[in-house]
Amino acid sequence: MVIILKQNADTAKKNALIENLTSLGIVIHHSQGTHTTLMGLVGDTSRLDINLLLANDIVEDIRRISEPYKAANRRFHPDDTIISVAGRKIGEGFFSVIAGPCSVESEEQLTTIAESVKKSGAKFLRGGAFKPRTSPYSFQGLENEGLRLLSLAKKATGLPIVTEIMSESQLDDFDDVDVIQVGARNMQNFRLLKALGQCKKPVLLKRGLSSTIEEFLMSAEYILAGGNPNVILCERGIRTFEPMIRNNLDISAVPLLKKHSHLPVIIDPSHAAGMSWMVEPLSKAAIAAGADGLIIEVHNDPKNALCDGNQSLNMTEFDRLMGDICARVAFEKKIMG
Amino acid sequence: MVIILKQNADTAKKNALIENLTSLGIVIHHSQGTHTTLMGLVGDTSRLDINLLLANDIVEDIRRISEPYKAANRRFHPDDTIISVAGRKIGEGFFSVIAGPCSVESEEQLTTIAESVKKSGAKFLRGGAFKPRTSPYSFQGLENEGLRLLSLAKKATGLPIVTEIMSESQLDDFDDVDVIQVGARNMQNFRLLKALGQCKKPVLLKRGLSSTIEEFLMSAEYILAGGNPNVILCERGIRTFEPMIRNNLDISAVPLLKKHSHLPVIIDPSHAAGMSWMVEPLSKAAIAAGADGLIIEVHNDPKNALCDGNQSLNMTEFDRLMGDICARVAFEKKIMG
Amino acid sequence: MVIILKQNADTAKKNALIENLTSLGIVIHHSQGTHTTLMGLVGDTSRLDINLLLANDIVEDIRRISEPYKAANRRFHPDDTIISVAGRKIGEGFFSVIAGPCSVESEEQLTTIAESVKKSGAKFLRGGAFKPRTSPYSFQGLENEGLRLLSLAKKATGLPIVTEIMSESQLDDFDDVDVIQVGARNMQNFRLLKALGQCKKPVLLKRGLSSTIEEFLMSAEYILAGGNPNVILCERGIRTFEPMIRNNLDISAVPLLKKHSHLPVIIDPSHAAGMSWMVEPLSKAAIAAGADGLIIEVHNDPKNALCDGNQSLNMTEFDRLMGDICARVAFEKKIMG
Amino acid sequence: MVIILKQNADTAKKNALIENLTSLGIVIHHSQGTHTTLMGLVGDTSRLDINLLLANDIVEDIRRISEPYKAANRRFHPDDTIISVAGRKIGEGFFSVIAGPCSVESEEQLTTIAESVKKSGAKFLRGGAFKPRTSPYSFQGLENEGLRLLSLAKKATGLPIVTEIMSESQLDDFDDVDVIQVGARNMQNFRLLKALGQCKKPVLLKRGLSSTIEEFLMSAEYILAGGNPNVILCERGIRTFEPMIRNNLDISAVPLLKKHSHLPVIIDPSHAAGMSWMVEPLSKAAIAAGADGLIIEVHNDPKNALCDGNQSLNMTEFDRLMGDICARVAFEKKIMG
Repeated sequence: MVIILKQNADTAKKNALIENLTSLGIVIHHSQGTHTTLMGLVGDTSRLDINLLLANDIVEDIRRISEPYKAANRRFHPDDTIISVAGRKIGEGFFSVIAGPCSVESEEQLTTIAESVKKSGAKFLRGGAFKPRTSPYSFQGLENEGLRLLSLAKKATGLPIVTEIMSESQLDDFDDVDVIQVGARNMQNFRLLKALGQCKKPVLLKRGLSSTIEEFLMSAEYILAGGNPNVILCERGIRTFEPMIRNNLDISAVPLLKKHSHLPVIIDPSHAAGMSWMVEPLSKAAIAAGADGLIIEVHNDPKNALCDGNQSLNMTEFDRLMGDICARVAFEKKIMG
Repeated sequence: MVIILKQNADTAKKNALIENLTSLGIVIHHSQGTHTTLMGLVGDTSRLDINLLLANDIVEDIRRISEPYKAANRRFHPDDTIISVAGRKIGEGFFSVIAGPCSVESEEQLTTIAESVKKSGAKFLRGGAFKPRTSPYSFQGLENEGLRLLSLAKKATGLPIVTEIMSESQLDDFDDVDVIQVGARNMQNFRLLKALGQCKKPVLLKRGLSSTIEEFLMSAEYILAGGNPNVILCERGIRTFEPMIRNNLDISAVPLLKKHSHLPVIIDPSHAAGMSWMVEPLSKAAIAAGADGLIIEVHNDPKNALCDGNQSLNMTEFDRLMGDICARVAFEKKIMG
Repeated sequence: MVIILKQNADTAKKNALIENLTSLGIVIHHSQGTHTTLMGLVGDTSRLDINLLLANDIVEDIRRISEPYKAANRRFHPDDTIISVAGRKIGEGFFSVIAGPCSVESEEQLTTIAESVKKSGAKFLRGGAFKPRTSPYSFQGLENEGLRLLSLAKKATGLPIVTEIMSESQLDDFDDVDVIQVGARNMQNFRLLKALGQCKKPVLLKRGLSSTIEEFLMSAEYILAGGNPNVILCERGIRTFEPMIRNNLDISAVPLLKKHSHLPVIIDPSHAAGMSWMVEPLSKAAIAAGADGLIIEVHNDPKNALCDGNQSLNMTEFDRLMGDICARVAFEKKIMG
Repeated sequence: MVIILKQNADTAKKNALIENLTSLGIVIHHSQGTHTTLMGLVGDTSRLDINLLLANDIVEDIRRISEPYKAANRRFHPDDTIISVAGRKIGEGFFSVIAGPCSVESEEQLTTIAESVKKSGAKFLRGGAFKPRTSPYSFQGLENEGLRLLSLAKKATGLPIVTEIMSESQLDDFDDVDVIQVGARNMQNFRLLKALGQCKKPVLLKRGLSSTIEEFLMSAEYILAGGNPNVILCERGIRTFEPMIRNNLDISAVPLLKKHSHLPVIIDPSHAAGMSWMVEPLSKAAIAAGADGLIIEVHNDPKNALCDGNQSLNMTEFDRLMGDICARVAFEKKIMG
């Protein structure tokens, strides 16, 4: 961290600042120019509060050098993390596809889809029991009944289940869930992140619509710092100015996250654009860019889906896509996890 | 709502769609062109699921005509809503200033600030007991002890208190809180919004960093639809590409929200830019643009604040600013509420 | 196009509007609801001025149904356009790589790079003679001397050259240039676009940093409408809120542009992120998403490049990347154009 | 400027870098930590090319301390610049209103509007002769005939004229123009900026839709560095994710530009939102935030305007608004310039 002092900074205040930083174990290197005075800080600056330092009236500006995340940082954990769930693996050469309906609607719907996506090669079943909807008048999910149906589908097919949690108060109901999903709108629901840090279940953490890469990794850090090392990062589109699409898949997030973190990264091409015909090109791009997996919405009857029908593939389309995905994963010299 | 059908849409499917819409009480007006066929939908289309309609393979596109929010919509509630709290009023000519520290740090800090801002003319005391922080290593607030200190300050000064809730599971602890704040990162925490719809306390709802005006009003709609009419909208800066400032105050949000909704609108100039020197110009702009109030961070010792010190005014700066604010509110022919 | 009238619109004004539209050959279908009156417009609405209609005080809003671009629109030109330059092809199964330095620095530099990239498989030589630089104090290019060096390199290697024009007044100097590049900052320099519509040379049109897909196609439309059918679209990153990267490659632009237009689409992975290590993953993603080509910065000595060194590959890195690109193009069943 | 070196940077390369920087007159302060090595650069770093430095493979990252603009920088020119045009003043307590139609349509239209806005208190007449339009099929302006009509209106009313230039090749035709406007889409048309730096006429430079504050000031720097000190900065809305408005007025730009530069700052509330009803609240906000002027679209018959009718005020609305503006300018203790 580098502190830039104001011109003609008061010496007493400057000494107080230096003393304060030194007392925290920080070593300071001074650099005096005609117009600017710099202090280079060496030591564990990750716990220094930049805002507090900026509020000091002799400080002009701060430049941070090192990242504020530690547990999620590849610099300190050079090897890829592999997440294992019921014999499936995600990360470091293992590629996984998670598929299923946007929301759980009925036992028949869910098992039909579950069996179909399993046959096509999906390794996890997704399905929303609790649905975060922009409108209070839209279908909000089957709630606990939806969780029950997911368990039945799991028993019937052997597919581990991935489903979204809305609040830390629901954790007890998620006992039979294999991977707990945190939705984009909850990426900075810090109470929820802390609670998930206390449990050991794998967490699929979706990136917020306008979260920076660093904020995303800081949310993962909440879970990791709590003691749960099993975090899967999921990019699902960011908000841009483009009116043609719902969200905009941030393909750069894949190499950036892989460079700065050791955690596995998967892509959600269904939510990214919000249109089923774009799932295929975005899935291809994700695999080529280095993603460790995909989470794809599949429905037995998209036009009668209770939510997000226009972004879901039907089962035949998914089956055809999976053929292509497998060929591409092999081309990348990865193994279907 | 207007549905644009695909060229050469299958007649049987078209009839099924028409039948389905008609059964929901919708009247359809047809408009047949050489290249496009339109269906104009008349009736209560607010509960139709656009995604469901888009998934129908004879549908090319949908154009919505009317807004999906009803309770928050000025079209159906032409008069301004005034929120009354302990004799204070916000909205329709009543302008209120809420002031206090970013986070509650100690009894002495809080009462010092509370007495000072009261003397300067603030009508509400703000202060965070639970702090949503990007980093798990930053100060997270005094939590329930913070709530206790807020109650003490309220007793000492008579100022009603405004503080942020993090989860619906905390509601019982917020009994003595006068206005419950929902932070920007929780604007779409729908479980929390639903729970707040069940209580009658005024809610100060902050806009998410990248929420559209419509999404913001839909979140208010969650609370209103639940039965709680007391919602104050708060614009606090949106995320743009500008690196010089933390967030970017969306001044257009004031006239847009006032036009489309009857709810009072206040501005948070402290978080909007993240720099204390910008609080003054942004406050002035907010008043001129038609805002119903301001929420301003004030600290007795900004450079030692435990969070967000560099965006807080000290008590002298706030006092001077309040003099200016009063003159401007009078210029706008409004009354300090 | 659908016009939504205000409630209680004045009948005389409404009739005047109807008469005016009818006189333009537009057929109107009316749809009367309790709260809204719609007029569905059928006919050639592409020349109607939406702003003019919106200014009419009985008009509440307008929803456009069809796209305002015609010549660039796949709806009217279903077949892919192939651009041919000196025996090379771009589009419809032909994939081309354009490579070379950010700016032309010297004859030796340029021929060294040109021979190297040709050997590696590039089909075009790029190089800036006129450089658009944010700072007036940065190197602005060798200007006409740069054009002369490009011609020499073309003669030496046989590679057609691609270089950027800054103003329509330079067109005469671009006689020996094979593909004229319009930079992102000039995407809406309409004088330049009109002038390029008058010549027949292929134009490589880069997307503006915050241009929508529709605006991008409208800029192509300027050139096409002028009579020049040879336009190559180039996505080179958009501006988002992410501070880690210079621009953000909009991978969705590839399928969106291919769906809505028949023009070839290439990707510039070098400018998209501004970091050389990201050229590889972004190139892979571009090929997988369906791009028709890549334009890549290659330098013989990146750390001494006069501009954009940190986004350039050196010649060895480019050669290695080309091996991978060829394998991927073959996987996509395309031919190196 | 601070250079952060990679861990285990090669000593020979490091020495070469140090030697290179020293030869440019830069003094280097070293700061060695366990994980990071910093070099603090002191001297005139404004001409160092950051990209060149970043391309050096021992450099991890660069943090710039001082701004790259000099002539536009308040740090080096603490006093406000006042632009004087035909006896009018803009800047440092002088507030000016520029008004007129989006585009010049006829002699009668222009003189009608010119006389009306003059009577209402406008000090400059605006009007477009050359119109940058997204669509090649929209009205492109009367071109040179428009310039002639502007001259006639100037003669008739005495109002100095402000009109937009599209290319440096037009400069000769702009002899009688008092203030040359550079449109948002041309903010980084560097050939045009350089040509304007050679003439002495005042330039009204509009900010690009997605330009950062620094890029905006760098474009002003092009003109100033060329020798023309008469630059007026104009904020006219930035591109955000909000679909309700065409652009989003960046009110923070006013205090930020005033802090970092000495140049006058005006606001265009007409283009900012694209809706005439928002001109009033945005104008009020602009004055309160510290702007030095406004540029407002006024039309004698907005609903028949040839462009941008729905954002133009009619003459009565403008007259009423001017009454309010005068009162507010007086409240700010400024003088109508």
